Amino acid sequence: MTETLFTHINQLVTPSPGRQHGAAMRDLTTIPDAAMLVSEGVIRWVGPRPGAPASTREHDLGGVAVVPGIVDPHTHAVWAGDRLADFEARVQGVPYEEILALGGGIRSSMRATGAASVDDLVALARPRLQALRASGATTIEVKSGYGLDFDAEVRMLRAVRALQSELTLVPTLLIHVPPTENRAEYVRGVCHDLIPRVAREGLAAAVDVFTEREAFTVEESRAILQAAKAHGLSAKLHADQFHAIGGTELACELGALSVDHLEASGPVQVAALAASSTVATILPGVTLHLGLPAAPGRDLIDSGAAVAVGTDLNPGSSPMFSAQLALALAVRLNRLTPAEALTACTVNAAAALGLDDRGALMPGQRADFLALHRPDWRDLPYTLGANPVRDVWVGGQLVSIPGVSR
Amino acid sequence: MTETLFTHINQLVTPSPGRQHGAAMRDLTTIPDAAMLVSEGVIRWVGPRPGAPASTREHDLGGVAVVPGIVDPHTHAVWAGDRLADFEARVQGVPYEEILALGGGIRSSMRATGAASVDDLVALARPRLQALRASGATTIEVKSGYGLDFDAEVRMLRAVRALQSELTLVPTLLIHVPPTENRAEYVRGVCHDLIPRVAREGLAAAVDVFTEREAFTVEESRAILQAAKAHGLSAKLHADQFHAIGGTELACELGALSVDHLEASGPVQVAALAASSTVATILPGVTLHLGLPAAPGRDLIDSGAAVAVGTDLNPGSSPMFSAQLALALAVRLNRLTPAEALTACTVNAAAALGLDDRGALMPGQRADFLALHRPDWRDLPYTLGANPVRDVWVGGQLVSIPGVSR
Repeated sequence: MTETLFTHINQLVTPSPGRQHGAAMRDLTTIPDAAMLVSEGVIRWVGPRPGAPASTREHDLGGVAVVPGIVDPHTHAVWAGDRLADFEARVQGVPYEEILALGGGIRSSMRATGAASVDDLVALARPRLQALRASGATTIEVKSGYGLDFDAEVRMLRAVRALQSELTLVPTLLIHVPPTENRAEYVRGVCHDLIPRVAREGLAAAVDVFTEREAFTVEESRAILQAAKAHGLSAKLHADQFHAIGGTELACELGALSVDHLEASGPVQVAALAASSTVATILPGVTLHLGLPAAPGRDLIDSGAAVAVGTDLNPGSSPMFSAQLALALAVRLNRLTPAEALTACTVNAAAALGLDDRGALMPGQRADFLALHRPDWRDLPYTLGANPVRDVWVGGQLVSIPGVSR
Repeated sequence: MTETLFTHINQLVTPSPGRQHGAAMRDLTTIPDAAMLVSEGVIRWVGPRPGAPASTREHDLGGVAVVPGIVDPHTHAVWAGDRLADFEARVQGVPYEEILALGGGIRSSMRATGAASVDDLVALARPRLQALRASGATTIEVKSGYGLDFDAEVRMLRAVRALQSELTLVPTLLIHVPPTENRAEYVRGVCHDLIPRVAREGLAAAVDVFTEREAFTVEESRAILQAAKAHGLSAKLHADQFHAIGGTELACELGALSVDHLEASGPVQVAALAASSTVATILPGVTLHLGLPAAPGRDLIDSGAAVAVGTDLNPGSSPMFSAQLALALAVRLNRLTPAEALTACTVNAAAALGLDDRGALMPGQRADFLALHRPDWRDLPYTLGANPVRDVWVGGQLVSIPGVSR
């Protein structure tokens, strides 16, 4: 059994394992001059260096701070084509409806993605996911949702599966854009064809629905998520991005793993989340990129909800290739404290994916951790525009980080 | 004479040389399938590849987009100590007055910087400046201003001078924090001792003053900047950061190179800048980090002003180590278009430093340029959280980019 004692950790900083609600999000454990024993990819012991168990193999981390690996619980990292023309038009004031009418917007991503092979999609997504990992993300959720048809959705999920040999990914089937006609038939197809197929082939861990005025209604979302549960898949929702039409309440009622976005959530939705076990996942990259209101991160925590943070990496509303920047923005835009942001990006983000085996540096947890460049962990939320992460360890192994952009 | 023809440029994109005002900031020249001839560090020819002059040496840039190197016209990259405790306290809601009373805030940076040797300051600043360069900054302004006394100010400027053998830096003497007593004597000392000494030793190209309610008055600023001009140094101002007390009007009256911050500028200040040759330098990192209002970038351009963008890299109000992120944030937070942001970060930023020999890819200009990872230059303003710059060329030479954070 290969066993490694990691030493010379100036500061080991971690939340407690499992989903943390409200004020408990601020309760970090900090061990100065720490050591950590890892074997078979799992943490066996953490504590002060002087009390560490003996080990045949030691690895000196050089006196820096160590924190859990970040879990990015919300990305759309598989797409083809680009949205640069849309970006330029939008910031020049062209309304989104006009961009759509000119053939841009999400439907341009759907056309390009629908026309791409699994190999194309793998080649396009790989550097994006490597960039997220270099920024500290040791587990990354990836959604489908740009498929023009069910086969394209399945190709997106197959691309995620192909990348799972290189990266730690959690695939989600996203029911994203309703067809312009035959909606009822489409929803029936999702429930009776697509979801059973995805479940049978083991292509996704959860089903997510975009519940919004311009997307799926609450009743359509309910039918889809009930089909998901009937096939053993977990439920997630995109809700309250532009309008609070009841998606958050549905998520709480169904015991969804998470409800994501929440920029338009009000006191009713905050109270529903605070009373539930559903994680509230906020996405500050969208706020920055589109100039939309920020989700009420501060209110959610003060009310007792469990908040997670994700990049929402996607070409239209969040071209943000850094999980560390998402963490740093949650402090600036959603008013989380540094400690809350660390919890949001680790154990709570894991809980948003139904995982409780990672996100904390405690015995029994996966040995997914980050060694920073500096001795003080607060450099992680503080730094803007540079990567404070020196090296990324997954299951106790240093993952090589090529000089990638994406 | 070594001469290189750079080829296989999918898209060469540049503003015109010199300071650009208002709508002219949007007038970029785009040459598809371009080539660029460089000799002795200067651009000799740019144009479509088929018409390029013959050259004994060719360098294939691989079909990517090429833009001018970014000029970062406003940093405080030399400091000692850190402000992590301040950061955590501030985002937890502790008022700045209380942070100051506890020994934090800018005075903690001044104590640590004042106690540091020139060698210490060089070692601390080097990786920060390397990070800015890796993000695309080929010329970087660096201010003094954390000195507790005149000798410490001079040590800061000597540290900048020491780094000028490795990086292209423009040093500025910043009169930043008034003493708690004997203000009049201090200002006289600045005018009759510090400025003449700095001018004599050639330690700075310009003098900058922080004109603000809590800092220097308009009349003190006027005296300082008149002394600067009398000693052959250019004038710059920090103004309208919290209150518009007349600093912008003073800058325009004195023909200052730039006035920087402008978060509190109103229509009177915008009109003064539009009617002047003084560059309006905006600093979106401060807006993001402190949650302050954004400077009126859109209004300034629509009124005809020349706008530049800088990182304001400093430990208290803008820990932002990427010039590319400053450019990208100016689009999101200050409502510049991508084209305006490129002009703001290149020729206009150079003009804010009194330079007209860089910032455009035109014959006669310095061969400071960026080869991106991608074929479309709009990736530069679009990307968040990853570096879209593949390589950085200064004076026609590829500068090595170590894997730095700072």
